Amino acid sequence: MAIPHLLRAAERPRARNLGVPFDGTPGPLDAITDVRGVEVGHSTIIRGKGALKVGEGPVRTGVTAILPRGQQSDRDPVFAGWFSQNGNGEMTGTAWVEESGFLEGPVMITNTHSVGTVRDAVISWRVRRGAPDQTGYWWSLPVVAETWDGELNDVNGFHVKSEHVEEALSSARSGSVPEGNVGGGTGMICNGFKGGIGTASRKTSEEGGGYVVGALVQCNYGRRVDLRIAGVPVGREITGRSPREDDSGSIIVVLATDAPLLPHQLKRLARRVTLGLGRMGSISGNGSGDLFIAFSTANPGAAKTTGVGSPAMLPNDRMNPLFEATVQATEEAVVNAMVAAETMTGANDVTVQALPHEEVRRVLRKYGRLIESQR
Amino acid sequence: MAIPHLLRAAERPRARNLGVPFDGTPGPLDAITDVRGVEVGHSTIIRGKGALKVGEGPVRTGVTAILPRGQQSDRDPVFAGWFSQNGNGEMTGTAWVEESGFLEGPVMITNTHSVGTVRDAVISWRVRRGAPDQTGYWWSLPVVAETWDGELNDVNGFHVKSEHVEEALSSARSGSVPEGNVGGGTGMICNGFKGGIGTASRKTSEEGGGYVVGALVQCNYGRRVDLRIAGVPVGREITGRSPREDDSGSIIVVLATDAPLLPHQLKRLARRVTLGLGRMGSISGNGSGDLFIAFSTANPGAAKTTGVGSPAMLPNDRMNPLFEATVQATEEAVVNAMVAAETMTGANDVTVQALPHEEVRRVLRKYGRLIESQR
Amino acid sequence: MAIPHLLRAAERPRARNLGVPFDGTPGPLDAITDVRGVEVGHSTIIRGKGALKVGEGPVRTGVTAILPRGQQSDRDPVFAGWFSQNGNGEMTGTAWVEESGFLEGPVMITNTHSVGTVRDAVISWRVRRGAPDQTGYWWSLPVVAETWDGELNDVNGFHVKSEHVEEALSSARSGSVPEGNVGGGTGMICNGFKGGIGTASRKTSEEGGGYVVGALVQCNYGRRVDLRIAGVPVGREITGRSPREDDSGSIIVVLATDAPLLPHQLKRLARRVTLGLGRMGSISGNGSGDLFIAFSTANPGAAKTTGVGSPAMLPNDRMNPLFEATVQATEEAVVNAMVAAETMTGANDVTVQALPHEEVRRVLRKYGRLIESQR
Amino acid sequence: MAIPHLLRAAERPRARNLGVPFDGTPGPLDAITDVRGVEVGHSTIIRGKGALKVGEGPVRTGVTAILPRGQQSDRDPVFAGWFSQNGNGEMTGTAWVEESGFLEGPVMITNTHSVGTVRDAVISWRVRRGAPDQTGYWWSLPVVAETWDGELNDVNGFHVKSEHVEEALSSARSGSVPEGNVGGGTGMICNGFKGGIGTASRKTSEEGGGYVVGALVQCNYGRRVDLRIAGVPVGREITGRSPREDDSGSIIVVLATDAPLLPHQLKRLARRVTLGLGRMGSISGNGSGDLFIAFSTANPGAAKTTGVGSPAMLPNDRMNPLFEATVQATEEAVVNAMVAAETMTGANDVTVQALPHEEVRRVLRKYGRLIESQR
Repeated sequence: MAIPHLLRAAERPRARNLGVPFDGTPGPLDAITDVRGVEVGHSTIIRGKGALKVGEGPVRTGVTAILPRGQQSDRDPVFAGWFSQNGNGEMTGTAWVEESGFLEGPVMITNTHSVGTVRDAVISWRVRRGAPDQTGYWWSLPVVAETWDGELNDVNGFHVKSEHVEEALSSARSGSVPEGNVGGGTGMICNGFKGGIGTASRKTSEEGGGYVVGALVQCNYGRRVDLRIAGVPVGREITGRSPREDDSGSIIVVLATDAPLLPHQLKRLARRVTLGLGRMGSISGNGSGDLFIAFSTANPGAAKTTGVGSPAMLPNDRMNPLFEATVQATEEAVVNAMVAAETMTGANDVTVQALPHEEVRRVLRKYGRLIESQR
Repeated sequence: MAIPHLLRAAERPRARNLGVPFDGTPGPLDAITDVRGVEVGHSTIIRGKGALKVGEGPVRTGVTAILPRGQQSDRDPVFAGWFSQNGNGEMTGTAWVEESGFLEGPVMITNTHSVGTVRDAVISWRVRRGAPDQTGYWWSLPVVAETWDGELNDVNGFHVKSEHVEEALSSARSGSVPEGNVGGGTGMICNGFKGGIGTASRKTSEEGGGYVVGALVQCNYGRRVDLRIAGVPVGREITGRSPREDDSGSIIVVLATDAPLLPHQLKRLARRVTLGLGRMGSISGNGSGDLFIAFSTANPGAAKTTGVGSPAMLPNDRMNPLFEATVQATEEAVVNAMVAAETMTGANDVTVQALPHEEVRRVLRKYGRLIESQR
Repeated sequence: MAIPHLLRAAERPRARNLGVPFDGTPGPLDAITDVRGVEVGHSTIIRGKGALKVGEGPVRTGVTAILPRGQQSDRDPVFAGWFSQNGNGEMTGTAWVEESGFLEGPVMITNTHSVGTVRDAVISWRVRRGAPDQTGYWWSLPVVAETWDGELNDVNGFHVKSEHVEEALSSARSGSVPEGNVGGGTGMICNGFKGGIGTASRKTSEEGGGYVVGALVQCNYGRRVDLRIAGVPVGREITGRSPREDDSGSIIVVLATDAPLLPHQLKRLARRVTLGLGRMGSISGNGSGDLFIAFSTANPGAAKTTGVGSPAMLPNDRMNPLFEATVQATEEAVVNAMVAAETMTGANDVTVQALPHEEVRRVLRKYGRLIESQR
Repeated sequence: MAIPHLLRAAERPRARNLGVPFDGTPGPLDAITDVRGVEVGHSTIIRGKGALKVGEGPVRTGVTAILPRGQQSDRDPVFAGWFSQNGNGEMTGTAWVEESGFLEGPVMITNTHSVGTVRDAVISWRVRRGAPDQTGYWWSLPVVAETWDGELNDVNGFHVKSEHVEEALSSARSGSVPEGNVGGGTGMICNGFKGGIGTASRKTSEEGGGYVVGALVQCNYGRRVDLRIAGVPVGREITGRSPREDDSGSIIVVLATDAPLLPHQLKRLARRVTLGLGRMGSISGNGSGDLFIAFSTANPGAAKTTGVGSPAMLPNDRMNPLFEATVQATEEAVVNAMVAAETMTGANDVTVQALPHEEVRRVLRKYGRLIESQR
């Protein structure tokens, strides 16, 4: 069955439009924004070409903002949990997520060497919005993660500025999410093909609660040889070389759900991301910063500081559909990132090829896994 | 001010009866059982004397049971969190406490080499009680901790049997808690003096919520030279030797509270136990199993497996009084254990001296810290 | 290419004999015992049939012992690290593994309700062997893990006794490892088929160091619907029902390597097991105790207590081949467990069907993944 | 016994010059720089007075740099471990410290809202130094920690710039360490008195290996009422108010040692910092970011990326003297910070009083704890 609304939502095909088989039922947008309230914004910086000159470019980078409760995100923290499958990366603010159980603002993703700029700019943004910073200290520990785009981008030129952070935050919206070479994902490489931003979602059955789990990835990990799509060893069947042959990239995964989960349950969700990457063939290489964060948009007001709260809590015994949704949404979000990303030429004329759609279809067909009717 | 009810509750003096100054306000019993519903039972095994013959004795050991919700403990799990300050010890069942956020039965404490017997006996007890084991697997991961009593006890003789576990469980009750050479604490050594079981509690102010935090310790850690009581270097002022000179013991601390805390907040509580041990002069030596578990008796029914729950939750911003109570109750429980324990002679006629009460008073007086009116 | 020695080593076919395609190069035995020094022993208890009567049977259970350095395992600890992907299970002794970096004896695996018996029996075994227990406390924290066999076995009858532990330990040997319905794996169920013990190994290339990574699993997890073999959705293609439909089982994975890894590096290895399970389709359900431990047989004498050691240490930058080997060996060990296990009828005449070999071949062929020449 | 060299080293008295009794034997400088190779640099920014105007000042802040191997710190990583006693704070780069076991450059400490600037500036510094950044990605995850100075400082004005980072790094040196209102500690408050930077060290006995443990703290935590010095309740005996009454500050502790410890052993050291804070009366309040990192200067070249290393490793059984040294050095470093810090007036004319030296002596004398001969 073709899914027309997906074709409308994105101008380019997404993985399931190509006939890649996935398990489970996606939400209407098949995106993290299927979780009501979640907004995503990108600031994409593409400038210059040719030889790299540090500080001048070429620039192929950006910032992506995920706002759990839209513009209320800094006023109404969400329960959250995080997990590091391989810690060769940065996700600031996690000591407080772990301790408090709360994510107190947006999750930002950028390149490795711009984490600091983005972090302080989020504070600045927050301060400019005025509001309850009377206490002064409750807003100070932004969550900012990264992957490394130094093959295509002048990463040591520090081209992300506070105005890009502002743009990502202020342009955030619900609805379909641009994927591929956008925002923090602009210059990324994934399994030897062009990577970037991808997203997907799953809706559990009515008896499972009808909850939504959405994943958004900044996808920059893996070797071509390891790439599996729908269990098929696609990476071995598509020849060609990549400017990055080793497993030195990273992947940041942001999970959102409207299921009423407590912090320790969200940590459980985050830990299931690894299973989704396992399906893709990942070995979580030494150089890979595989860092995951999960939050729940349930329980508005959970972070109030007086009285006694009574947050909704899903029993552990009812979490299996969410675990399944997490694995499936992660898997599809990665494929979506690769399907959406287009071939890019960056610094020093390095070119990273996009995942060739027809080749993928050919290989899936060879192994009896192509859903032909999708096109 | 003397505290007459404490004198009545225990037949022997407790630390504050000796004039040791403590901060904060204890509950009526100054015991973990001030947390409503919590019950404690001991099985004490003292048998034989003279030369050690493995399997025959002498025996100086036992089992202590802490039941969070009394005889309902296995039917109505409590939220819980745990922490290992130094992992040279065993606390079974913690992988599930960490994952689920629940403690699903009693906490048992015994000697190091009887953990297995006690663990399986708890399952056996549970099975005999019939009840909701229809599913079969939900009751299988008891929490059992230990410290090592091999100086006084024939620890390799495995003298703890399932009947002792049964006795500790069935004799558990609310009210004042026997301390010193009882239950799992029977053969323990602490800071070079006789150790064992100790307990204490704190009640937060009305504006702090009026919650109770109780601590129960099985106290077997530390060197005499490091011992501080109320900040006074008592261990250096009381001469004499101990059969254990190095820091090879351990301490298990069980925290109970009626404050409505979620699992990740209870873990925060458990992590504050270390601060209480810091006040006592501990360095948490390499050989010391310093393992702590905290649970909340709030939220009956929190572990239901259907629908959506709505557990009460204290804001993080209101936790400081509980942190303070934890540090203070831990500190006093350790001193109570040492004050209550009496001189014991065990295997191979090894003798461990009790903390000499008058000497402690003398040293506290010397440093201007004795509360004279206590006696 | 057929692998004759594998056919000789085991009397039944193993997964790759069936034509299941795997990545990487196995060691000579394709077993954890390819890591020199590692020995494995089983005690299998099969007794009675018909209606369950608690305490009488039927019995379908056992104990498996993995000895890192054979009979020297308790005298020469190995560096180790562990990880809990989902903590609905028990692995005793892990607080000390985490703290010290050492595994100080065998790893034992049994059923859920016999962990205690096995634990104390290991201490007893150790004590009977005499040896350096002069200090008394260094041998006290055995590592014992479990999965639940209550569908087929009278798990509440506590049929594992110390003699079975003794048998598993004393019968341990190098060479090929019996798989399937043996030892701790006797009564297990995996992905809706009969599960049990499985093993596999990988040898890294010469430039990768030529190190061996071996995995041994006690495999009791998963739903049929999720089962993937070699990326193929086998579980959906083979109809039929199982006495266990939900994801309430567990899997214990033991990793051995001769690569010179430090404790924190072994923890990294353990965390990669999840990626192997991801390839198999696991969602790590709420009821699943997914606990993994990794040790290195390099560095004999690393646990000496005097002087300063100088353990060999592989650079982090050289770990990728070991990560890959871990993922691959885990994946194959699970399939080996299912391929080796035979249909079993247990308590109350419950029957669990073995994985039907010809059906698996049929499905793999359908998806172009069968290696035809294997038979 | 007076310690003349300490008086010479610092122009102001330090804690032990006031007669505060401490346990253990300090190194020659009683500073983290007693660990050979460790260098410390400060950039102190004090500007303006009167009413706060965001972006203009007044400014009372700065940056402190701790270089484990001096100017070789970014070329020769050190083994490291970290611990969060209470995660209401930021320490970037810890995911990689945890994963790799290495600290790959300096530890920087600043105010909460300048962490980002400092982080990226460290990368910039590293890039400008040229060197082995060929690979591009190995230098990207600086460790930067913070505490909050918003009472005295225009923290939302972002006054720390890359030139201050450069100054702290380039001015780093061995020898005595300026304490109190310097560097990152410039605007800090501790236990209701002026806080800031403090340091101390301990040397273990010859039989303990003669190793040095040094601590450096940026001290901004605690309530006056909780303050204990040498076990004496100093905070209750010195009246007066503070601009900060609650426990909303933080403390960063950096531990250095020349003992050959592996990463997991350094984590053990970091976890002992809590015991030192326990002695000071800390309850580790909800608002406190209590984050600790420990590194070892032993094993130069440990991070080589080829071959097989053989780092020196101290047995766990020999760590107790280091645990003791850690507790003692932490305790003294905090007192040193408070003794060194001078009364400061900052934004909006808020004034924080210095710890009154004579009052401290008076209280210690009252409790029989003053070492009179020190002056």
